[in-house]
Amino acid sequence: MIKILKLLKINQKIVLASKSPRRITLLKNLGLEFDVIPSNINENINEKLQPAEYVMKLSRLKAENISSILEGNEIVIGADTTVYLDGNYLNKPKDCDEAFEMLKKLSSKTHQVYTGITLINKHTKKIISEYCKTDVTFRELTDDEIYAYIESGSPIDKAGAYGIQDDFGAVFVRHINGCYYNIVGLPIELFYRMLKEVLR
Amino acid sequence: MIKILKLLKINQKIVLASKSPRRITLLKNLGLEFDVIPSNINENINEKLQPAEYVMKLSRLKAENISSILEGNEIVIGADTTVYLDGNYLNKPKDCDEAFEMLKKLSSKTHQVYTGITLINKHTKKIISEYCKTDVTFRELTDDEIYAYIESGSPIDKAGAYGIQDDFGAVFVRHINGCYYNIVGLPIELFYRMLKEVLR
Repeated sequence: MIKILKLLKINQKIVLASKSPRRITLLKNLGLEFDVIPSNINENINEKLQPAEYVMKLSRLKAENISSILEGNEIVIGADTTVYLDGNYLNKPKDCDEAFEMLKKLSSKTHQVYTGITLINKHTKKIISEYCKTDVTFRELTDDEIYAYIESGSPIDKAGAYGIQDDFGAVFVRHINGCYYNIVGLPIELFYRMLKEVLR
Repeated sequence: MIKILKLLKINQKIVLASKSPRRITLLKNLGLEFDVIPSNINENINEKLQPAEYVMKLSRLKAENISSILEGNEIVIGADTTVYLDGNYLNKPKDCDEAFEMLKKLSSKTHQVYTGITLINKHTKKIISEYCKTDVTFRELTDDEIYAYIESGSPIDKAGAYGIQDDFGAVFVRHINGCYYNIVGLPIELFYRMLKEVLR
């Protein structure tokens, strides 16, 4: 089975500066071979940035953090995803109560998912950052649905307390406008175009 | 792990009148237990119908076909998905040449994916049909990408010659507007609402 990333004939080592299992799965599905070295940065940057700037900045900090400790000609991938509702960031919930509160807020509303991606080519010194925005509309959720979803354990490690690829998440989302994979954590059509660009 | 469909406490047997592996996977992921009995109908109905009417009619014919041979109090699910571009239906390609032609047509354009769903509750005699429409925008595809995708074998059994869940399909699609799972073959948020309704 040919994988699309085999078409790019990449001969540099690739490093993903993220330990997100969803990003790892998406990139493996594309046929990409890469190492995982999670970045270690303080994510509490100035939240007064607009979401597009915010996710691009964090993705760049993550990529630069790992780039600075590597000594070869690697390509480094940094990414950051955030959920944005009515002017507020919804990050990963710290406990079940906060997960409940977040899902109640998302119910019957449209929010935005932003992902920033930064690619650094250490060979050419090229650095590119881009972002992707997707509107996500939830139907009205019942408290029973929210409790059962939280009980499943899935919301806890996810920004906005949901994953669209979950059975619950999929049934909660009525409509999306933009890239689907952005909501999963990595807009792969954008990533693919950026990778072609950074290899040039 | 709780699955969302367990919340509905269904005590009727459920039959899916479709052998689509993607529909089967989506429904299993929701925690639904069901039998698969593919319908056996002539799908060449009057194509002068508008796509929404067309997919609802086909989904109903499929569900009725299986409902008529069952003797219990089953719930029967019929579904039909079609790809629609500039007034034309793109069905499953008959060979690699037709797959190439379809993907060339989809390149750089927005098309529509329609899925019709019919649910029949043989116990209450309730029958409901609905449809879902999603706009899908492809980026410009290179001939090399199209050839490699066809060589992977994936386009041949899919309406419109692509699957958004494939590695290639995912990288071809720039933007969607509507339900993602509709493009995979079953809009599950709509399905879930219809199932709650037909159980009432």
